[in-house]
Amino acid sequence: MMGSSFGTLFRVTTFGESHGRAVGAVVDGCPPRLALREEDIQPQLDRRRPGQGRLTTERDEADRVTILSGTENGLTLGTPIALHIANRDMRPEDYTALAAAPRPSHADYTYRAKYGIAASSGGGRASARETAGRVAAGAVAEKLLRERWGVEIVGWVSAVGEVDCPAVDPATVDRPAVDRFAVRCPQEEAARRMEEEIARAREEQDSVGGVVCCVCRGVPPGWGEPVFSKAEALLAQAMLSIPAVKGFEIGSGFAGARMRGSAHNDLFVWKEGRLGTLTNRSGGVQGGVTNGEPIVFRVAFKPPATIGRPQPGVDFAGRPVRIEARGRHDPCVVPRAVPVVESMAALVLADLALIQNARRPHP
Amino acid sequence: MMGSSFGTLFRVTTFGESHGRAVGAVVDGCPPRLALREEDIQPQLDRRRPGQGRLTTERDEADRVTILSGTENGLTLGTPIALHIANRDMRPEDYTALAAAPRPSHADYTYRAKYGIAASSGGGRASARETAGRVAAGAVAEKLLRERWGVEIVGWVSAVGEVDCPAVDPATVDRPAVDRFAVRCPQEEAARRMEEEIARAREEQDSVGGVVCCVCRGVPPGWGEPVFSKAEALLAQAMLSIPAVKGFEIGSGFAGARMRGSAHNDLFVWKEGRLGTLTNRSGGVQGGVTNGEPIVFRVAFKPPATIGRPQPGVDFAGRPVRIEARGRHDPCVVPRAVPVVESMAALVLADLALIQNARRPHP
Amino acid sequence: MMGSSFGTLFRVTTFGESHGRAVGAVVDGCPPRLALREEDIQPQLDRRRPGQGRLTTERDEADRVTILSGTENGLTLGTPIALHIANRDMRPEDYTALAAAPRPSHADYTYRAKYGIAASSGGGRASARETAGRVAAGAVAEKLLRERWGVEIVGWVSAVGEVDCPAVDPATVDRPAVDRFAVRCPQEEAARRMEEEIARAREEQDSVGGVVCCVCRGVPPGWGEPVFSKAEALLAQAMLSIPAVKGFEIGSGFAGARMRGSAHNDLFVWKEGRLGTLTNRSGGVQGGVTNGEPIVFRVAFKPPATIGRPQPGVDFAGRPVRIEARGRHDPCVVPRAVPVVESMAALVLADLALIQNARRPHP
Amino acid sequence: MMGSSFGTLFRVTTFGESHGRAVGAVVDGCPPRLALREEDIQPQLDRRRPGQGRLTTERDEADRVTILSGTENGLTLGTPIALHIANRDMRPEDYTALAAAPRPSHADYTYRAKYGIAASSGGGRASARETAGRVAAGAVAEKLLRERWGVEIVGWVSAVGEVDCPAVDPATVDRPAVDRFAVRCPQEEAARRMEEEIARAREEQDSVGGVVCCVCRGVPPGWGEPVFSKAEALLAQAMLSIPAVKGFEIGSGFAGARMRGSAHNDLFVWKEGRLGTLTNRSGGVQGGVTNGEPIVFRVAFKPPATIGRPQPGVDFAGRPVRIEARGRHDPCVVPRAVPVVESMAALVLADLALIQNARRPHP
Repeated sequence: MMGSSFGTLFRVTTFGESHGRAVGAVVDGCPPRLALREEDIQPQLDRRRPGQGRLTTERDEADRVTILSGTENGLTLGTPIALHIANRDMRPEDYTALAAAPRPSHADYTYRAKYGIAASSGGGRASARETAGRVAAGAVAEKLLRERWGVEIVGWVSAVGEVDCPAVDPATVDRPAVDRFAVRCPQEEAARRMEEEIARAREEQDSVGGVVCCVCRGVPPGWGEPVFSKAEALLAQAMLSIPAVKGFEIGSGFAGARMRGSAHNDLFVWKEGRLGTLTNRSGGVQGGVTNGEPIVFRVAFKPPATIGRPQPGVDFAGRPVRIEARGRHDPCVVPRAVPVVESMAALVLADLALIQNARRPHP
Repeated sequence: MMGSSFGTLFRVTTFGESHGRAVGAVVDGCPPRLALREEDIQPQLDRRRPGQGRLTTERDEADRVTILSGTENGLTLGTPIALHIANRDMRPEDYTALAAAPRPSHADYTYRAKYGIAASSGGGRASARETAGRVAAGAVAEKLLRERWGVEIVGWVSAVGEVDCPAVDPATVDRPAVDRFAVRCPQEEAARRMEEEIARAREEQDSVGGVVCCVCRGVPPGWGEPVFSKAEALLAQAMLSIPAVKGFEIGSGFAGARMRGSAHNDLFVWKEGRLGTLTNRSGGVQGGVTNGEPIVFRVAFKPPATIGRPQPGVDFAGRPVRIEARGRHDPCVVPRAVPVVESMAALVLADLALIQNARRPHP
Repeated sequence: MMGSSFGTLFRVTTFGESHGRAVGAVVDGCPPRLALREEDIQPQLDRRRPGQGRLTTERDEADRVTILSGTENGLTLGTPIALHIANRDMRPEDYTALAAAPRPSHADYTYRAKYGIAASSGGGRASARETAGRVAAGAVAEKLLRERWGVEIVGWVSAVGEVDCPAVDPATVDRPAVDRFAVRCPQEEAARRMEEEIARAREEQDSVGGVVCCVCRGVPPGWGEPVFSKAEALLAQAMLSIPAVKGFEIGSGFAGARMRGSAHNDLFVWKEGRLGTLTNRSGGVQGGVTNGEPIVFRVAFKPPATIGRPQPGVDFAGRPVRIEARGRHDPCVVPRAVPVVESMAALVLADLALIQNARRPHP
Repeated sequence: MMGSSFGTLFRVTTFGESHGRAVGAVVDGCPPRLALREEDIQPQLDRRRPGQGRLTTERDEADRVTILSGTENGLTLGTPIALHIANRDMRPEDYTALAAAPRPSHADYTYRAKYGIAASSGGGRASARETAGRVAAGAVAEKLLRERWGVEIVGWVSAVGEVDCPAVDPATVDRPAVDRFAVRCPQEEAARRMEEEIARAREEQDSVGGVVCCVCRGVPPGWGEPVFSKAEALLAQAMLSIPAVKGFEIGSGFAGARMRGSAHNDLFVWKEGRLGTLTNRSGGVQGGVTNGEPIVFRVAFKPPATIGRPQPGVDFAGRPVRIEARGRHDPCVVPRAVPVVESMAALVLADLALIQNARRPHP
């Protein structure tokens, strides 16, 4: 599947430019008889949406989702679920000045190189706004995973710039804890310092990067398709498909590359009636297949490319220009990226769950 | 596409257990009239193959590739290219003792959880031997990319355990330089220290992880499909699909998450008649689409799970056992992983090249 | 691609129940810079829509299409084109009586067997209304084919019940000729008799089947992917995916099975500077690949299952019931099916065109 | 999936030219723990293979299949099953004279138009030999369907040229009855006349077409994915992908197009504890989903294009030539096509079975 579609059995197709009529998604392959209403989807959209507080962009989008098809009387029919989110707050004029020159580290140049044309305002499909459709679809996947398999997915901010918060326990962290602070780091002292770091970046008309950590608990052993569709491979694809992401690691990650095997191996032990591992450097997957331990991974986000201060550049003809941003923009995306990371993880796992289910012996 | 297939237009399907009759691949969608003979494929297989020297496993496999179909008189026909590599050196008996208990950090447990059955010897499809098929297919992709678009792909070892080699220039490094040292690090002093580190791990009946860095030069602007099939997303999937990989980063990667936007942004400049960037923290992709700068990424490999020294464990029924490896094994996989990384990069780029080509206006 | 998605590079995903909020489609992969506005799509929707005259259902749906994304200033951006058609005339109450018993030759029973649930009214996704999304998407494909390759697609009604019209010349028939009569048969005498046949069926509270013939002219040699994605194979899938279709034949079709090779073979001749064939029993494809001759195929539609007269049946528990239709329904679908057949042909050809384009040597 | 791959969860990729080293297939996604050895596959290959008697080509190919991967101790592992069939009897020289001019109604011209190159001998991938890989893969699918769901698939020849055999009962026909006569028609009188018809065509250095009918019994209600992947749509694609096929019809087919709804509708009745239909004009599918009745369809094969008598033609430059066949060839393909039709039906149903299985509620 290419481009704006993702998944094999649980498949999502997203659509929508940042400043067009609407964004949204079509979810095909969701099993029937799942209880689903707009209010099941809205909370994650609200967590993703801009305008949640002083840490995020001031753009005001209600981001109300409407289910156009695929449910009746609050139950899924097994048919495509079309999810529609109107773009209420279009301000293409903010961007017209930019049309003549590519903004640094945006997709302005590459989209023109690719298509010979680009949406005249905002980032088009490269905009973070595109992720609204993913989050709507991901909320459906997450509900399926929770109700059918008891899977819980929790993401949090583990770093903003140089401020780290390594002390979160993946076994117990939950969304209320994460949402206690606007920055979505569950540890108070770190959260406070992260908020300061973001405020400082804003004051300096600058932006700052960060890291989102995510855990998926309750995933049974056996999910993930060997070779090219390993669970970690699809998670990596999913995460690197999120705008601004530059890195992904699972379990021990890059730190694991520095280790010896004797220290890295996760020894098997007997846990609550089944095999488990003493440590979890594997991050919940071995040979591409889940082993029943929590899936733990980290996603690196670069600092947003749009900054308040002017930057030198050249226009499409190579003439020197001065680039000045006028659109609304976040100094740091990671707090709003948390539900996006969770949603993409849910889309991967829902698909792998159905595929593994297909293989079960028929009664 | 799921499981053992990868790609949309340039598609590879691999097959073969580590200790069965053969491993191999079918490449469907390779354009016609590409000059292709076995000797175009063999060199990368030779670089991947075990038994290249004291740094790698002693298993001796000639790994001779045979083209079963898809070419005539040394030219591709546009039809499926079946690539066959016989398994000459099967020693399943080395592994029989392991059948009763899962080896730590291998796929023994997860494959059984998934399938209710597993190849009785070696890692089956989770074995590094599976990558032979990818390398054969990747050599075809690489030849296409080189001849049609002038793309060059070079991977090298940038770290073994705690030994780093950051001083390689992605703009100039080439394969002869990389292959000068058995460890496939082009910098002599680092290479020597890496070889010592590997030798030490072997002596201590242990293993050690490492990092492979890779550059793809000459990729034109415009490759990569927005949203879910961004170039970096497919590269991430491709890399995390390689056995033992725990992390992927492109451009600034995790270090970028610590930076400010003003320092991270790649300013556009005019370069040799087209737009280029002054720095390359984007790693050659912006908004998922290549920008004409070199694509640079890093791949983290955990230390091999098979080590000489005994380890505690439990059998499938939970009874304590002592795990002792007897099969052949590498203390460090990164030198042999270099052609695997290059091959997976080639498979991603060949597919994206054809997809972008499809969009070109018809003459 | 499964279920509600179709195509590899030019991909459509449709959504919408017959009596829900909306139906529509997302087209991903349409090349950029194609001129496209709602008025390019509306005419085919108008030809498909109910309420066009006494031959079709009285249901009144404006079927106005809105482009939600993927275009700007009347040009495609290369991004997903979301097409939205509101359901204005919902009357689920017409169908509530049917919920307890499956209508004969409808999908009421099979959808329940498949999903354990079904839309309580109308045919849900099995309804002919689902084809509105296909027609909207097909209009985009058709415009691309016409503008980039000069392809013309014309369908017409070649039979209604026992009334045949074999005398249409595929080389010259065009849409104005087809639309001259409400029944969409371009031959006056046959059209008159077909209309009588349909009126008779309506009077008798019955329905009647028919055949749609279709020609695609101007398709260059070389489209169609060997083996499983032969042009005729994808056309067959596309046509049998249309509700009520029971048969497909291309070129000589079933009549060809009765012939000798010496009479059936299409001899090659030199035609206007290139190879052509003297006859066209191949129907424009040889070995799954187009040969430059017109693609000609025929599609058999069964009589609509919904008829005015009561029919015996059983409810889901097996108790005898009397089935009486109350919803609106056509006595014959083939006149309205003509744009659906054309649209599905366009979707197949647009996809094959792009795939073949991908293979062209790079300049 | 494009080209030489077919299926979503149960996926086959075939490879091999008619006169190259080997043909074969890779089956990915077959569930684990299915008993499978070469002798489970060989019988269908033997039914397909040339040289079975005076009705078929004299080419002698043992067509011995070897399982290269995916099984151990006679059980599938869940991993890709690579099936290898050597080409023993290569005679490319028979075809060299043909290289300069395209044979009528073969793929010689279209493959060159598509690829700019073609296998110099035989039909390459357009050859009927390509179907050996499908039959090998289909035998695996069929075994899965039979053992897990009790599905039986039986094809037979229902027409050769003008000789029809409509009197076969799809409810009871079995393979021993079909194989009683070399022509694979289970009805003695018709079989005798068909054999005469084929002998006559051979004597006249001509060829003749025919029809294969096929029934799939024991398919439970609920298989088939609505909209584009309806059971009948995938069967149609599967059948039209077989070389020489020009038509497909299911249930009432083209005859249904001549009928009234009141006569065509399949009334529901209570049958052995579940809903069934009194008649089966639907052919076992309603709304694209199986209804538990036998799936019955018919496939039209044109007469083979290769005939003994010379035919006029032109070479690739348009100069008049005389085309004379020298290779081996069948005067009628339908007897050997029976296992190909069965195999393609099995591939479709195995895939749909797994997809429907994926949707079942988790225990």
